[in-house]
Amino acid sequence: MLDERFGHEIHLKDRPLGTPTENDFEFVKVNVPRLKQGHFLVRNLWMSVDPYMRGRMRDAKSYLPPFQLNKPLEGDCVGQIIESKNNQFKVGEYVHSNFGWREFWTSMSGSGITKINPKSTPIQHYLGVLGRTGLTAYVGILKIGELKNEGKNNTVFVSAASGAVGSVACQIAKIMGCHVVGSTSSLEKVRWLLDEAKIDDAFNYKEVGEDNISPQLRKLCPNGIDIYFDNVGGNHLYAALDNMNPFGRIVLCGMISQYNVPSFPNPKSGSPNLFLAISNRLKIQGFIVRDHYHMLGEFCTNMSKWIGEGKIKSEETVFEGLKNAPKAFIGLFKGEKMGKMLVKI
Amino acid sequence: MLDERFGHEIHLKDRPLGTPTENDFEFVKVNVPRLKQGHFLVRNLWMSVDPYMRGRMRDAKSYLPPFQLNKPLEGDCVGQIIESKNNQFKVGEYVHSNFGWREFWTSMSGSGITKINPKSTPIQHYLGVLGRTGLTAYVGILKIGELKNEGKNNTVFVSAASGAVGSVACQIAKIMGCHVVGSTSSLEKVRWLLDEAKIDDAFNYKEVGEDNISPQLRKLCPNGIDIYFDNVGGNHLYAALDNMNPFGRIVLCGMISQYNVPSFPNPKSGSPNLFLAISNRLKIQGFIVRDHYHMLGEFCTNMSKWIGEGKIKSEETVFEGLKNAPKAFIGLFKGEKMGKMLVKI
Repeated sequence: MLDERFGHEIHLKDRPLGTPTENDFEFVKVNVPRLKQGHFLVRNLWMSVDPYMRGRMRDAKSYLPPFQLNKPLEGDCVGQIIESKNNQFKVGEYVHSNFGWREFWTSMSGSGITKINPKSTPIQHYLGVLGRTGLTAYVGILKIGELKNEGKNNTVFVSAASGAVGSVACQIAKIMGCHVVGSTSSLEKVRWLLDEAKIDDAFNYKEVGEDNISPQLRKLCPNGIDIYFDNVGGNHLYAALDNMNPFGRIVLCGMISQYNVPSFPNPKSGSPNLFLAISNRLKIQGFIVRDHYHMLGEFCTNMSKWIGEGKIKSEETVFEGLKNAPKAFIGLFKGEKMGKMLVKI
Repeated sequence: MLDERFGHEIHLKDRPLGTPTENDFEFVKVNVPRLKQGHFLVRNLWMSVDPYMRGRMRDAKSYLPPFQLNKPLEGDCVGQIIESKNNQFKVGEYVHSNFGWREFWTSMSGSGITKINPKSTPIQHYLGVLGRTGLTAYVGILKIGELKNEGKNNTVFVSAASGAVGSVACQIAKIMGCHVVGSTSSLEKVRWLLDEAKIDDAFNYKEVGEDNISPQLRKLCPNGIDIYFDNVGGNHLYAALDNMNPFGRIVLCGMISQYNVPSFPNPKSGSPNLFLAISNRLKIQGFIVRDHYHMLGEFCTNMSKWIGEGKIKSEETVFEGLKNAPKAFIGLFKGEKMGKMLVKI
């Protein structure tokens, strides 16, 4: 039961131009209403920040509506029910929802809310390897990337390989028997990829230089690349294109290198080497995970098994306190994190 | 029977830099050998010039080996057997082969040679609508573009729409019930597309301006584009990307706007709006027709029927004399032709 009937939310104060700053966000004190019949109150325990949220900060049509100014942001979170006047949702139960960026929220119906089991796994895993993040990697590498069992000898290149999605994609590819190479942004992350995720090779693209990714890939993937799992776009994408094998698949999952470019996603002049998509019969396919939710059951079964067998490792970078959620979000674009970026509220 | 035992071939004298010129080619007189047992001699009647040949003039690895300097070029042609010491190939029969760019050629075995029936259709159709050109359009729009019967209300945009492949792609899309818009490079071609191919709308991109293709498409495709059949690349591709519907398909068939760029196919700086491939879950797929030859039977049945029903019209631009083959080829890049570019030898 809540004594003081107020909590906090993070509002979007301004639409960021370029890289977001803390001034674009506002930490706002709000009342927590008393519950009516059928309602229940949740205290958020963990929330996720994700690069795709940058897109929703623009006032532009995309696959999700833009965030509204002076309203709380949204996103994945897990919390615990602390008050309830709804028989289906009991005090003490844990739930997953999209009502992140706030300390408390009230549900009038339970719609869009999934109960989660806190005993089988740390609850924040439902924001990472066992949540949308993991499903994104799973769908991307297996379905969009068409990684079949016959892909045993496939070479897979993953950019942002130590990131939330990338680290899972890398490890699924290893499970499937592929030769896996990853790019990341620090020596420490290279070490993690080699020692923990146990991929075959990894490099720090900041050390290699953005213009030298292509020759670096030629060196590390002497048989060419069969699947490129792209989280980065820009120079990474062009370098991968240079090195794709015929019938290769490029999984366009994210383009974090581009999100803060003011003109994004509008074209600038330039002539990318997309012709290689013809001569190598490439499939370059974009996707959005929510189109593939029907794979959730299969995904949970396999992922739980792999985690249980120690085949999937996951890292978390945690910021403490809702107040620090913007810092966490901005940190996504600075390469400061390892694995899944989380805010502990 | 040949009286004078010599003929002519076109050799590649120099690898063109930028747009090819006639100086890159050589018209060479060669002996025609007397036939040994099992051999037969063909006089070419028609040959095809195609944009893809520009790629083979580079000394670079691609899906076909480069043309060799001071050797005859190769390409689709049809001819008639004029001497034979082979029971399977009789004098008077017509054959299709890849031994273009020459007046005569001798086969030792008949391998790679297909007999054609001169009665059912003008023989040069086997270089156009009933040949690789038509199959390219067919595979591209139906298979790669995933144009199904349900695609009745799909909007299809075709660039180089009055070209050899484009004009067939347009008309197949009309047969399938789509709303079809084409771009081309002259008012005369716009008229042909509207009056003969009977597509729904067409524009002259030279009049519209390369930078205004996107707003032009927004006007002519108010419901967005479901399939873009790309023969052009560059600004056409970027403009189409701007206007694609979710789950749209971009069929990368050719990039004629880029073939004479000296750095092609290597990347230049620039940030194309490929992110739209993610947010709209696009599939951008390159293909090469020879991977789909198993569809040839189905293709011939349908295409013959459509031609018979007057549903597929085809135009030809004909240059007379082998000597003029380089002119014909260079003309491909000048937008001087309508429909299939042919050389009458």
